[in-house]
Amino acid sequence: MAKTIRIEIIAVGSELLSPYYQDTNSLYLTQRLNELGLGVVRKTIVGDDEASLVRCFREALKRPGFVFTMGGLGPTEDDRTREVWARVLGRTLVFQPKIFDHIRRRFKRRGLTPPASNRKQAFIPKGARILPNKNGTAPGLWIEDSGRTLVLLPGPPAELKPMFQDLVWPRLQRLRRGHSIRRVLKLTGLGESVLESEIADLYPKDDPLSVTILSSPGQIEIHIYGRTDRSRSSLVRKARLLEKAFSDRLGDFIFSNSGEDLEEVVAGLLKARRKTLAAAESCTGGLLSHRLTNVPGSSEYFLEGVIAYGNEAKTSRLGVPAALIQQHGAVSAHVARAMAEGVRRRSLSHFGLAVTGIAGPSGGTPQKPVGLVYTALAWDTGTQIEKNLFLGSREYIKFQSTQKALDMLRRHLLLTGKKPAVRIRGRKGRRIKGKVK
Amino acid sequence: MAKTIRIEIIAVGSELLSPYYQDTNSLYLTQRLNELGLGVVRKTIVGDDEASLVRCFREALKRPGFVFTMGGLGPTEDDRTREVWARVLGRTLVFQPKIFDHIRRRFKRRGLTPPASNRKQAFIPKGARILPNKNGTAPGLWIEDSGRTLVLLPGPPAELKPMFQDLVWPRLQRLRRGHSIRRVLKLTGLGESVLESEIADLYPKDDPLSVTILSSPGQIEIHIYGRTDRSRSSLVRKARLLEKAFSDRLGDFIFSNSGEDLEEVVAGLLKARRKTLAAAESCTGGLLSHRLTNVPGSSEYFLEGVIAYGNEAKTSRLGVPAALIQQHGAVSAHVARAMAEGVRRRSLSHFGLAVTGIAGPSGGTPQKPVGLVYTALAWDTGTQIEKNLFLGSREYIKFQSTQKALDMLRRHLLLTGKKPAVRIRGRKGRRIKGKVK
Repeated sequence: MAKTIRIEIIAVGSELLSPYYQDTNSLYLTQRLNELGLGVVRKTIVGDDEASLVRCFREALKRPGFVFTMGGLGPTEDDRTREVWARVLGRTLVFQPKIFDHIRRRFKRRGLTPPASNRKQAFIPKGARILPNKNGTAPGLWIEDSGRTLVLLPGPPAELKPMFQDLVWPRLQRLRRGHSIRRVLKLTGLGESVLESEIADLYPKDDPLSVTILSSPGQIEIHIYGRTDRSRSSLVRKARLLEKAFSDRLGDFIFSNSGEDLEEVVAGLLKARRKTLAAAESCTGGLLSHRLTNVPGSSEYFLEGVIAYGNEAKTSRLGVPAALIQQHGAVSAHVARAMAEGVRRRSLSHFGLAVTGIAGPSGGTPQKPVGLVYTALAWDTGTQIEKNLFLGSREYIKFQSTQKALDMLRRHLLLTGKKPAVRIRGRKGRRIKGKVK
Repeated sequence: MAKTIRIEIIAVGSELLSPYYQDTNSLYLTQRLNELGLGVVRKTIVGDDEASLVRCFREALKRPGFVFTMGGLGPTEDDRTREVWARVLGRTLVFQPKIFDHIRRRFKRRGLTPPASNRKQAFIPKGARILPNKNGTAPGLWIEDSGRTLVLLPGPPAELKPMFQDLVWPRLQRLRRGHSIRRVLKLTGLGESVLESEIADLYPKDDPLSVTILSSPGQIEIHIYGRTDRSRSSLVRKARLLEKAFSDRLGDFIFSNSGEDLEEVVAGLLKARRKTLAAAESCTGGLLSHRLTNVPGSSEYFLEGVIAYGNEAKTSRLGVPAALIQQHGAVSAHVARAMAEGVRRRSLSHFGLAVTGIAGPSGGTPQKPVGLVYTALAWDTGTQIEKNLFLGSREYIKFQSTQKALDMLRRHLLLTGKKPAVRIRGRKGRRIKGKVK
């Protein structure tokens, strides 16, 4: 077998050729394959019609290596992946009673009998190995043919992922080529251009490591990826050194080096410090609380959220004096402070976190433009307020506002916890003045 | 020329084979081509390396029709699209001084001279027509070769889109093949299998219309797509008839026929009826309010949200009697009702919408498993409560819960508004008993 294995992915489905759908399964598959040091050399997206599938599969067979197909294993007329592979390989379709039993049992559990159309899912190309589907009716298939391997996976992610993890991944272990490593640093509070100018001189010039910067409003990820056929320990050491060099430069602008999202980091810190939190939201409209409660077990630290969208609610729910709103406007440092302190006082939580701003697209004025957002964090002995001007769509402004609020809390928890505060110094020892763009 | 034109898209770029990047250009291209009645039959994503490109382009040449390639026209070593096409077509590369002049002028405007690497962008396959690039250095190319047409476009969307619009679109007009139409119906409250059994007999057997069902937890979309070389009005009439047939069967399980999301539909109904809303959330943790406030102008109808995550908050914030929680548990029809009525009373809104449930992954019991969710809608003269058992991850359970809550409000607004209530009858006049899976 060739030293590097050629892997292709084919996504089957006419909807993936419309302007409305993307093949996202291949991203998962690629990530998992990368973990084995295996890369994907081509992805193809093809429709359901027989002629297109035949042509596409026939061509794929001429190229060496592995082919993963995803989709087209369902019970409907449009599901032709099994049949077309059988035809292209010149194999007959054989009925497998145990597949049909599995389908029958799934239907029976819901008090149903499978319609005739499901029967076709039990016909598989002769010699194919069955990959049972715990989460659906369509079994996956593993076919070896003259040195090539074809892996047929179902399209729904909830079926594909567990099947890959449980049944395909173990079989791929023998293909593992050398070693690979990926480290992901996540940052907030810095713009991409500032980041680049701070760390560009550290980028590795040669293999085995490469660095990719992925930037979106409110967050930047630095991906360190490495692959080697030689020593794993040397690869790990090199990656660690590079990560350390980035960390020294970027300090606590980095909130995570293990894939965690900002809300997970904040959740971990709150739990570790045994602190509770309540949120008061205006322009973010629930997104801050939604993110905090996406973390399993959030009831340990998240007491309540108040979405005080109207001014009456700010007064009645959070005790923001009506006169304060009158005098400074609902989008002001004064009101942000009163919201954070109000929600903290009324919920009896350790921290109160508040956001008020203008998410747009309308409602801005020259003095208070769309994207103006105040965030405030209240604790027992003080309140911190920040003012930002975020760019982008309504949804981006909402997201960036929650990033800012969560990051204020994260930094506060870092400073007040046992972990010593890190001084943030840029290259040449100067303070980084970066901001979210 | 063949009656239907075969169009393929090839996206060039190794980053598009990583787990972190998607080819999004092809969605734009597909949408524009669909407007001309032209469909895309295949999309391929291929890396930058020469061997892969040669193989991919060579294979594409064997298939008839149009090939759009995107990317690989830049000045770096990794940009090989021009050279590889020249090689595969057996054409020499010729230097075009006017391209290099354009590049020089772009650099000069910024007070720079182009590096040597940019010179290669001025070499094009002999006989290619130049598509000047207003927004970058890389010109696009239009190559005709033995009945095939190759269109080479730059990768950055800000360069590709204007180039396509200004220079490619007009040339494609002559290919316009009749007319196309797409209608999207969005539904909630029905499982996919129930939906299929209700409407499968209506699916068009022949052209010009096709139907695609796209299902995700809590929502189903029916896409009606049609293309014809003949009369546009006949196509439109057929699509309308099919849509009408679906609507007659599915009634108000359909919440939108114009692309709107459920929260937008609810927002529109609330505004039209001049009604206000307040939300009380437990397991959805802010997602319901977040979705409602994603709609611009939501402050017109959304007064406030309360995320009463802990039991204390349910009592203090919403007036849910502690004894009620004690007796029935926080996840119960009684507490859902009290939450909806409480938030309505305290906010002085027309409607109170509440959700309480177990989003998991932990916290379930045999009596109250993960996914058990109560939703309640309170209005001036009554309260409606629904109990559901949703499957899936924490995030899916949160989403499905908000779908259910929003749909209760939508249905209530439909019934109480001016539009007459539609009785929902399935095929053969029986009541559809479908539920979200």
